[in-house]
Amino acid sequence: MFKIKHADSTTEARTGELKTAHGIAKTPFFMPVATKLTVKHVTPMELEEMDTQAIITNAYIDSLRPGLDIIKKYGGVHKLMNFHRTIFSDSGGFQTLSDTFLQEATDKGAKFTDPFSGVVKQHTPEQIIQIERELGSDVAMCLDHVPKKGMTAEQVADATRRTHLWAERCKRYHDAHDNKDYYDRRQLLFGIAQGGLDKNLREKSAEFMNKLDFDGVAMGGLCIGEKKEEMFNAVKWQIPHFSKDKPRYLMGVGSPEDIIEAVSLGVDCFDSIYPTQNARHCHIFTSKGTIKLDRGKYREDMSPLDPECDCYVCKNFTRAYLHHLSRSFEWTHHRYLSYHNVYFVVKFVERLRKALDKGEFKDFKKEFLQEYKKMGKDR
Amino acid sequence: MFKIKHADSTTEARTGELKTAHGIAKTPFFMPVATKLTVKHVTPMELEEMDTQAIITNAYIDSLRPGLDIIKKYGGVHKLMNFHRTIFSDSGGFQTLSDTFLQEATDKGAKFTDPFSGVVKQHTPEQIIQIERELGSDVAMCLDHVPKKGMTAEQVADATRRTHLWAERCKRYHDAHDNKDYYDRRQLLFGIAQGGLDKNLREKSAEFMNKLDFDGVAMGGLCIGEKKEEMFNAVKWQIPHFSKDKPRYLMGVGSPEDIIEAVSLGVDCFDSIYPTQNARHCHIFTSKGTIKLDRGKYREDMSPLDPECDCYVCKNFTRAYLHHLSRSFEWTHHRYLSYHNVYFVVKFVERLRKALDKGEFKDFKKEFLQEYKKMGKDR
Repeated sequence: MFKIKHADSTTEARTGELKTAHGIAKTPFFMPVATKLTVKHVTPMELEEMDTQAIITNAYIDSLRPGLDIIKKYGGVHKLMNFHRTIFSDSGGFQTLSDTFLQEATDKGAKFTDPFSGVVKQHTPEQIIQIERELGSDVAMCLDHVPKKGMTAEQVADATRRTHLWAERCKRYHDAHDNKDYYDRRQLLFGIAQGGLDKNLREKSAEFMNKLDFDGVAMGGLCIGEKKEEMFNAVKWQIPHFSKDKPRYLMGVGSPEDIIEAVSLGVDCFDSIYPTQNARHCHIFTSKGTIKLDRGKYREDMSPLDPECDCYVCKNFTRAYLHHLSRSFEWTHHRYLSYHNVYFVVKFVERLRKALDKGEFKDFKKEFLQEYKKMGKDR
Repeated sequence: MFKIKHADSTTEARTGELKTAHGIAKTPFFMPVATKLTVKHVTPMELEEMDTQAIITNAYIDSLRPGLDIIKKYGGVHKLMNFHRTIFSDSGGFQTLSDTFLQEATDKGAKFTDPFSGVVKQHTPEQIIQIERELGSDVAMCLDHVPKKGMTAEQVADATRRTHLWAERCKRYHDAHDNKDYYDRRQLLFGIAQGGLDKNLREKSAEFMNKLDFDGVAMGGLCIGEKKEEMFNAVKWQIPHFSKDKPRYLMGVGSPEDIIEAVSLGVDCFDSIYPTQNARHCHIFTSKGTIKLDRGKYREDMSPLDPECDCYVCKNFTRAYLHHLSRSFEWTHHRYLSYHNVYFVVKFVERLRKALDKGEFKDFKKEFLQEYKKMGKDR
């Protein structure tokens, strides 16, 4: 199911292959986010063309709209959205951070408000896994209770304890149900370790999840406003407690510089809205750092977004033209900028994999960061 | 410059070829609108792939943003927006209808407010032609004064007189300036006949424009709120006064049923925001009429937007999925729906040309309208 291909000699980084019902996803990989069954402004055909290994959707939100009846009628989310590769489904655990969604988290489950109908409904860990099975995603994530900023140490400990309890129930339910009753294929299940920013809780949570013997383990509750150092500390505390032979997924990351750092700590999978969200604010990734394209200084800039990029946007349009579209609030600029940013990150991780396989990761990392930080922030 | 290929024996319809600096545009053709140098939600590559013969931009608005300095730096609008086929430029005459733009129309010219800076500036017909020359469009349109709904007969007559005066000055200025000083290619110039809904004025205006011997003649001030019958009357009054050997352009049209009707009256060129604007409101063209995709009845509809369409949207997605995206306000739905509607109209006109060339126009028109009106309006 997961096979390590090459382990770096100087860091914890490794390449591998995650085998799912929809083929091989080469690790490390970055997943664009398709919360409502589409990546914002980017098509599934474009994602396949740029060789995106996997994407992630949101089980809880998909179950509300378009609804499980529609999804099952299609034979699962792949056919519905016309994406033929690996699809992860997040559980709705991320929505425990949101006051719009979460009414109450108890040991029984998460009580969510459906934002479309206003109806409040209890969701047990078992029900969430059932939703994910009906979606037909390749990799289901356990329901977790993500500790919010401002929680007391006691509350964080309690949310972590609850996450463990829920994880056990998710695992038990998933194991007890033959996945073949829906789509005749095996669905993988990943656990999510939490623990806030507390060393002891993070370690214990990693240990706990590791013991449950999931198909993969994730680190959750990070990249949600804490300092970079705090985030990487949590990763460093948890990774040693995970078996080497399971894929490790850092949820919510992100930026090229964070991805490369996390890879060298031993992380294999990532997901984030970072490229698409940045694109919509005209923050564009280039080999020399990000540029803020709607600034006046790009009005006459005849170069492509990134002279080193070979995406269709960089091959066909200039910064000046894209600047014009963004200043004119023309819809096409979102499309071009989102495509470029997603392409940039997907191809960056592809190059990173290749460097690892050739045993050149250390040099690649050094050179990439040197170039990427050259310009400083253009904001 | 314009060559008639096949004239229909039963109607005034004909096929032909309009030769411009960017190749041959087969007539009849429909132009998607790229007011600010992009069609909304559709890329120039997509337009070329679907074999769009020509598009139209707006000279006055382009001169404000991105500005003529940028456009000239690129060597014209084709290179700036990466479209390699025929580009028409409207003059800004359409903006004489808008209170946001027009401050005053006098014989001297149109006094427009720049909506970006708030600055009010006089634009003479000569200055507008100069702008169009600097854009490097293939076909420039004369500045016209479009009579607004609610104008008295006297005001309409005065606007028409002014349109004639301006047309003469546009022609004189265009003739006097060798177009080669910018882009080493000849720019065509079309006159625009006006006349409101008055038979006598329409006839006189057509006669006047015909005499000025433009490269082509347009009928303006139509499809702006008048009745269908009134619009077609104006076309019927004007067409007999145009030489058969010049291309005839009906501005602002439009829908498949109006295009086919106008073609049978002898019209060769069309432009309209109709396909893209309809798409943004989920009005989707199909061979059996328009559907309103965001209605609940499409929630479970597993068929493509139009079962007879071979565009990539129809080949890859269902109504149910696109309904979901539109109800979730996901950006990609605009993109898919706009593409389909533009494709539908461009391919419809292509089929219409082929039917004409084969001498089968009458049957094609009958069958198309029979099918297209089958469903009635789904609103």
